[in-house]
Amino acid sequence: MDFKIVADTMWVLITAMLVFFMNLGFATVETGFTRAKNSVNILSKNFVVFAISSIAFFALGWGLMFGNGNPFIGLQGLFGLAGADNSPATGAAYQGAYSAISWATVPLLAKFFFQLVFAGTAATIVSGAVAERVKYLSFIVFSFFMVGIIYPVVGHWIWGGGWLAVRGFWDFAGSTVVHSVGGWAALAGVLVLGARIGKFKADGSPNAIPGHNLGLATIGAFVLWLGWFGFNPGSTMAADVNAISRIVITTNLAAAAGILTSTLISWLLSGKPDLGMTINGCLAGLVAITAPCAYVSPVSSLIIGGIAGILVVLAVMMFDRIRIDDPVGALSVHLVNGVFGTLAVGLFAQDIFMPGTTGNGLFFGGGFGLFLTQLTGAVTVGLFTFLIAMVIWLVIKAVMGLRVSPEEEIRGLDIGEHGMEAYSGFQIFTAQ
Amino acid sequence: MDFKIVADTMWVLITAMLVFFMNLGFATVETGFTRAKNSVNILSKNFVVFAISSIAFFALGWGLMFGNGNPFIGLQGLFGLAGADNSPATGAAYQGAYSAISWATVPLLAKFFFQLVFAGTAATIVSGAVAERVKYLSFIVFSFFMVGIIYPVVGHWIWGGGWLAVRGFWDFAGSTVVHSVGGWAALAGVLVLGARIGKFKADGSPNAIPGHNLGLATIGAFVLWLGWFGFNPGSTMAADVNAISRIVITTNLAAAAGILTSTLISWLLSGKPDLGMTINGCLAGLVAITAPCAYVSPVSSLIIGGIAGILVVLAVMMFDRIRIDDPVGALSVHLVNGVFGTLAVGLFAQDIFMPGTTGNGLFFGGGFGLFLTQLTGAVTVGLFTFLIAMVIWLVIKAVMGLRVSPEEEIRGLDIGEHGMEAYSGFQIFTAQ
Amino acid sequence: MDFKIVADTMWVLITAMLVFFMNLGFATVETGFTRAKNSVNILSKNFVVFAISSIAFFALGWGLMFGNGNPFIGLQGLFGLAGADNSPATGAAYQGAYSAISWATVPLLAKFFFQLVFAGTAATIVSGAVAERVKYLSFIVFSFFMVGIIYPVVGHWIWGGGWLAVRGFWDFAGSTVVHSVGGWAALAGVLVLGARIGKFKADGSPNAIPGHNLGLATIGAFVLWLGWFGFNPGSTMAADVNAISRIVITTNLAAAAGILTSTLISWLLSGKPDLGMTINGCLAGLVAITAPCAYVSPVSSLIIGGIAGILVVLAVMMFDRIRIDDPVGALSVHLVNGVFGTLAVGLFAQDIFMPGTTGNGLFFGGGFGLFLTQLTGAVTVGLFTFLIAMVIWLVIKAVMGLRVSPEEEIRGLDIGEHGMEAYSGFQIFTAQ
Repeated sequence: MDFKIVADTMWVLITAMLVFFMNLGFATVETGFTRAKNSVNILSKNFVVFAISSIAFFALGWGLMFGNGNPFIGLQGLFGLAGADNSPATGAAYQGAYSAISWATVPLLAKFFFQLVFAGTAATIVSGAVAERVKYLSFIVFSFFMVGIIYPVVGHWIWGGGWLAVRGFWDFAGSTVVHSVGGWAALAGVLVLGARIGKFKADGSPNAIPGHNLGLATIGAFVLWLGWFGFNPGSTMAADVNAISRIVITTNLAAAAGILTSTLISWLLSGKPDLGMTINGCLAGLVAITAPCAYVSPVSSLIIGGIAGILVVLAVMMFDRIRIDDPVGALSVHLVNGVFGTLAVGLFAQDIFMPGTTGNGLFFGGGFGLFLTQLTGAVTVGLFTFLIAMVIWLVIKAVMGLRVSPEEEIRGLDIGEHGMEAYSGFQIFTAQ
Repeated sequence: MDFKIVADTMWVLITAMLVFFMNLGFATVETGFTRAKNSVNILSKNFVVFAISSIAFFALGWGLMFGNGNPFIGLQGLFGLAGADNSPATGAAYQGAYSAISWATVPLLAKFFFQLVFAGTAATIVSGAVAERVKYLSFIVFSFFMVGIIYPVVGHWIWGGGWLAVRGFWDFAGSTVVHSVGGWAALAGVLVLGARIGKFKADGSPNAIPGHNLGLATIGAFVLWLGWFGFNPGSTMAADVNAISRIVITTNLAAAAGILTSTLISWLLSGKPDLGMTINGCLAGLVAITAPCAYVSPVSSLIIGGIAGILVVLAVMMFDRIRIDDPVGALSVHLVNGVFGTLAVGLFAQDIFMPGTTGNGLFFGGGFGLFLTQLTGAVTVGLFTFLIAMVIWLVIKAVMGLRVSPEEEIRGLDIGEHGMEAYSGFQIFTAQ
Repeated sequence: MDFKIVADTMWVLITAMLVFFMNLGFATVETGFTRAKNSVNILSKNFVVFAISSIAFFALGWGLMFGNGNPFIGLQGLFGLAGADNSPATGAAYQGAYSAISWATVPLLAKFFFQLVFAGTAATIVSGAVAERVKYLSFIVFSFFMVGIIYPVVGHWIWGGGWLAVRGFWDFAGSTVVHSVGGWAALAGVLVLGARIGKFKADGSPNAIPGHNLGLATIGAFVLWLGWFGFNPGSTMAADVNAISRIVITTNLAAAAGILTSTLISWLLSGKPDLGMTINGCLAGLVAITAPCAYVSPVSSLIIGGIAGILVVLAVMMFDRIRIDDPVGALSVHLVNGVFGTLAVGLFAQDIFMPGTTGNGLFFGGGFGLFLTQLTGAVTVGLFTFLIAMVIWLVIKAVMGLRVSPEEEIRGLDIGEHGMEAYSGFQIFTAQ
């Protein structure tokens, strides 16, 4: 057997395992940033959602995303990896986003696992934004459609050889495919659900609802940061030593810059360095570098991450001002910086890093062409995702209800939905 | 140097590190599912047990398991890896379970580390079942015998070229060798120890004793799930790209199915989705797929995991009914599903996946032959392990005592055994 | 592309990711071992410090450490990896510590990432010792100088082809470069800061200040243990199968021995097995084996780890007696055992393991030569680091203050420095 196959497969599987581990990161960040009385519910959602994702992507998503079909949707290999021939490696449709890096040799099931853990991530992003008031089963049903239909259709456009891939839209590891898709679906959910009871005063100004366990949240943040070393460098789908080394560095520098600018700006604005903002600044930098990680220099990655850290703080303030209640800042992290990262490709890309792919962005002499393509992709994906997600949320609301009762919300979803407490025996103030 | 040696060694070491990390998973699942007043004790047991395992397997276990000897026990290379010649690669006895996959080239010390982390797992399984009443030192002494003697003898039968290997018994990654052995030893311990004070009412019906930290338990569950991506695909002992890709998928699908069926059935039976059952359903699916992971199709893995998720819920209810007190559900997860997974090989195995090994199971035209061999192995290993473990528990009880005093149990083992609290400064209700 | 490059690069990157993950380990061990009222501060310091390290090592440290220059300092490739030619592989200066293992082929950015995560570790070690009274910003400023200047200068001496490398000083993975440097810098900080309010009684005897969350601390301990499987075997900078397999084993055995001896001796001295000592014994064993891991036998690693476990317990008692207040035992773990591990090379090294490097230590017929060189390195690095760190701490104290006000310290740094609590809603006794 050829050593390249072995090395590439090991790289794909090991990085996929790191991305799988991000489920723990999302579960603990979201739980830590919310109230003790809803912890079982949030932990449970985040634990079950990857199981749902596994089934949905196995049964539907993979085929819709990577099967041959038309520029808008794949139509092969549905229902359980039945047709091994729909492999991205052999499917003629699959020429596009990865054309600079061959992944022809990795076994189908390794590719499937890598794509599955990405699909799962898109669903977990939604979880945080709708937390503390969404019905457990309703969220699960949405997740199935998210991973079974919404995510793979957009994925087909960009990574499955679809119409955006053909136009020269570049999203290396998923600022758009994963993060902004998760973010738009979350925004639709938040709008349908409305704010948590007590989040906004009568005059519209927000009440702070502090998270109940910042140790848990910090564990999650480190695990997510680790997971991103799978997410971005693994998206080469090959152990291309120069590419993966560079991507590790751009990923890390963007995270570092996001931490520093978000901490600094929140310090300037609120007088204290806010750990929540520090963590969200890290995640914002990571989301923003996800699309451009393979196409930009280390210094550009510092700039992109630094901007992301500022954007996330301003976005949190903006969502508070327009009375959109996102308990953990998921919209500010994933939606705002997913879009920003996608556009950053159009600004900072340099052809030298992946010759023959992106060309140069605006800041490196490439003009507006790439930027406009990136903008087109960001906008169309946003419109599509938001509209479909809105329809699904509204249908779920009509059929089975979406929000728990006010009594249950006040008492906590743990007792109401699960009949149990996360911290049995601890004395906890009622409001938490 | 040959690239295959390099790739295989990297794969073995990295997957072994993931299995090592399962020690954290067991520690946090067990602690989270029990009471705050016993947390230091459980954390401490789980931390020390891998140190004990390292010494015991180095000094005794490795040689008994993989040394040349007779069909029942190995007798070479005891006491510190002294004889490098007893390597599984060179020992003539070592023809059997891995015959389909050559691991001849991996250095002895890499194989040793991989086998050591497995041995450690068997000991940690016991820890959860005897929690909240076992004496600290007594548990440590038992663990030494578990890893030094019980586990390696059974391991020799199955993975060391012993009598079950010769008969065609197949246990790819240890549903029997690791999980049911841990489970049988735990059952013996639970029977000798008796139930916790307050677990059963005078009429025999059980009292729920809720776990004190479900965030901790969920962290553990994700870490264990991650660790299983080392446990099962690593058991190839080689970076065989098709095998490891398939095993990752069967492992994950079984976990997903176990989550969904256990959540659903506990929801139907108790009216609420119980996070504890969701987590144990995941672990049950993983335990059950451990033996057949390399021999079955993805769809079969879904069925196996789905059945495991149902079995674990029914088993928890059964053990409650027959007044066997297993605080964390270790028997239902590891014993019941270790046996089930072993038998599942006899039902679902397909020769196409590892040609020349298992042949076909009952559901794929192979008749009852394989199933009966699997049953033989499950029963004989169960009898042997249970009896030897019972003797060791009883001797420990006679010599040094096994159970803490009632006063200490009520007050908590943390103060009694360790003179400290896990949550210094927190207000915690006395019963917890 | 040559498979060796691919395998080596994968190994370097994956082990570096494990070392990165140690940031989570340090954050949770330190937070768990201290009081709830300071948790946000400690988590925040540990989260921000790797961002600071990333910038400082990118801008300054890498060039000072690995650039060509003179025996005392590197002077090339500063400010952002500008000169790819300063790669250790091509720089003539870089002949020394790694001469037995070629790492010529790994891409520059992969080497950079590996060295960066090591540099970050040195800074986090300081964090624990100065916890619960240091000003947030002052610690961050110190960390910048630590990673930008102190650490890379010492690193140049030993790993950058500097004067100690030339003399035949051997520190395989950094008992001196990382751990004792971190420890000496921490000692200087602790002396400048003074003890926490309430740590010592009027008669000088210490008060126990128990940690508030031993679950968190245990999570951290396991994560650090896992990370060390990157730290030590990754320091080969190559997938040398025999070396990495042996180093995994020596690393693990030293940890196991450290756990057992520290638990036993603290049990004998205090009457109970103290989980804090168990954890610190594990870390002590790991620190001590870090320098000799590649040069000693498994049995020697057991002895080294066992001694380390005893040393750490005695050192904690000694620091308490001489009224040096180190809240988490960082000095006892990293400084004392960093020095001991460095000297252990001079005692236990055997030439057979890395022919042509260390030669034999005192216990294997090599005489006092190697031991004296190791002692020279340990002492000079200690003097240099302690003095420079002391100057930096004193300048920071003069310019911006180093310690929070007594009111803030009593109330907790979380409210004072960050305006938030780690456990919002939980009832916690005031003193914690």
